[in-house]
Amino acid sequence: MKLQNDLLIRTARGERVERPPVWLMRQAGRVLPQYRALRAKLSGFKELVETPQLAAEVTVQPIDEWEVDAAIIFSDILVIPEAMGLTYEMVEKRGPIFPQTIRSRADIEGLLTDDDAAAQLQYVYDALDATKKVLDGRVPLIGFAGAPWTILAYMVEGSGSKTFSRAKHFLYSEPELAHLLLDKITRATTGYLLNKIRHGADLIQLFDSWAGILSPAQYGEFAVPYLHRITAAIATATNTPVTLFAKNAWFALDQLAATDCNVIGLDWNTEPDFARSRVGDKVLQGNLDPCQLYADHEQIVRATGKMIEAFNGRHIVNLGHGLYPDMEVEKVRTFVNTVKNFRYTQK
Amino acid sequence: MKLQNDLLIRTARGERVERPPVWLMRQAGRVLPQYRALRAKLSGFKELVETPQLAAEVTVQPIDEWEVDAAIIFSDILVIPEAMGLTYEMVEKRGPIFPQTIRSRADIEGLLTDDDAAAQLQYVYDALDATKKVLDGRVPLIGFAGAPWTILAYMVEGSGSKTFSRAKHFLYSEPELAHLLLDKITRATTGYLLNKIRHGADLIQLFDSWAGILSPAQYGEFAVPYLHRITAAIATATNTPVTLFAKNAWFALDQLAATDCNVIGLDWNTEPDFARSRVGDKVLQGNLDPCQLYADHEQIVRATGKMIEAFNGRHIVNLGHGLYPDMEVEKVRTFVNTVKNFRYTQK
Repeated sequence: MKLQNDLLIRTARGERVERPPVWLMRQAGRVLPQYRALRAKLSGFKELVETPQLAAEVTVQPIDEWEVDAAIIFSDILVIPEAMGLTYEMVEKRGPIFPQTIRSRADIEGLLTDDDAAAQLQYVYDALDATKKVLDGRVPLIGFAGAPWTILAYMVEGSGSKTFSRAKHFLYSEPELAHLLLDKITRATTGYLLNKIRHGADLIQLFDSWAGILSPAQYGEFAVPYLHRITAAIATATNTPVTLFAKNAWFALDQLAATDCNVIGLDWNTEPDFARSRVGDKVLQGNLDPCQLYADHEQIVRATGKMIEAFNGRHIVNLGHGLYPDMEVEKVRTFVNTVKNFRYTQK
Repeated sequence: MKLQNDLLIRTARGERVERPPVWLMRQAGRVLPQYRALRAKLSGFKELVETPQLAAEVTVQPIDEWEVDAAIIFSDILVIPEAMGLTYEMVEKRGPIFPQTIRSRADIEGLLTDDDAAAQLQYVYDALDATKKVLDGRVPLIGFAGAPWTILAYMVEGSGSKTFSRAKHFLYSEPELAHLLLDKITRATTGYLLNKIRHGADLIQLFDSWAGILSPAQYGEFAVPYLHRITAAIATATNTPVTLFAKNAWFALDQLAATDCNVIGLDWNTEPDFARSRVGDKVLQGNLDPCQLYADHEQIVRATGKMIEAFNGRHIVNLGHGLYPDMEVEKVRTFVNTVKNFRYTQK
């Protein structure tokens, strides 16, 4: 089906566009009353993720509410470890917990990978099918996965962490096992993302949420090679653009740019000029400080305009991180509308 | 009293030295069995901080154990908000909690500042006196405080946080009140640090632990001007060197270098070459990934040597963050001894 609004895709491919597209990380979620109403009827977060019709419904809510330029499938990066054999629980106000974690070679050898893992996630593919039907070509649908290092971090640590010191202990003390695990995660993730593309994902984003926990040397050894493999596999098999968002990995921007990705996401610490000097002509995505949406409407308009001018093209507008639950629907609308009313001056 | 080992001070002043000095953030603490034994007899962390003889005892433990080149007074950055009128509790495994937080102009106007605040901290000055006596000139004693933005973050947020979104909300929605509070924190902190110097602190380190939570624009507005004021006040009144350690503030290194500090601390994400290109001839401190100490002894020796070579002078060796509680005493010893055995080649 032809997209009625393909601004995101044209921008990701590097075409010259009239204005930057805009969407928000965590745009489907606790900021929206209609999301909270639906969520209150369910047993928990995972029921929502695993029920295709409901996942589709919340995926489309921000399109109806703010008319952003893209939908992103409502799901979680932790479906991959679960498909490989490590189930997780989502504990309210605490985050994900893995009752079992990876400790040994035997633990890793017992995990599923490749199509065996990807085939466990039929509910995600069904959610994509359902969403495409509801969207009816209005905007592109973004599919996503966690980057292999971030997935390893959860599988070894067993939960979120300020330091991820268990996961890093594993990299420093068992580098060979770490690579064995990263290889299996990479193969499962690649199969999963290619399936998502077959089920209608128009762009793929990889989230390397814990990139900034690693030293540059470790990021180069344990993260970047696997990003190369996934982006190359997608570029070989499809023409679907790929975005890498490696939070706090400012030190690795040049290495990210050397992969087959199309777009590089930026957190709010990284200034556009600095990023541009390191990524060549890759498209950039980001990067307003999410907390800027706590300011008044006038300041949001000013800061958003200033950001767009600073990027000056080859740019997808987003925040530098996801929306926080206590942000206001109307402040988000001001942000989105500021972008939608912007026009690049012709050079 | 003349210092027997003044390597840290000579290095901080920019003198040419035979090898870099070495100490570790959180060197007094849970890594040491002798610390845990003493701590187990007490009611809690605050009893240790507030009892000068005990604080002196644990301050000196790492000097006896590893013969590092400096002691750092055992204390907490949150003694300043407490001296200003906001008490905190230290909750095991959870961190600090403030029962009352700053919400309004009246809250700020009720706080003590200047010498009235600094005078509340006699137990810290007594701890310095006691430590100097025990140290007997073996190594310099480092005094420290939180940087004003980091202290504001705790006073508004009320606890640690992944996002510090309440504190940032305050900056975005009440910038004038934020500056009023930062001014009072700065004045209290300046008085406190000058008192510490009078009681024998040979070098001062400011910890801006939550620097990386702010955007570059906000860091420039709400953090840097107050670092200028504190470093200028110390430079005017004393010849005691000052170190700024602004964690994850790689984007502001040039602004930190423009203050009257002598040394800039680096986290483990920031490569020596990158830092050097931004700080001119300031001395640098850091920055081995703390988790490198989970590797085997041989790898620790290699990584430490590589780091010293990369900095190549004007360098104080430390980790890029504090020691974690599960690190081994013998691994720390390997790190320290690698530095102590190093000699710069004469050029």
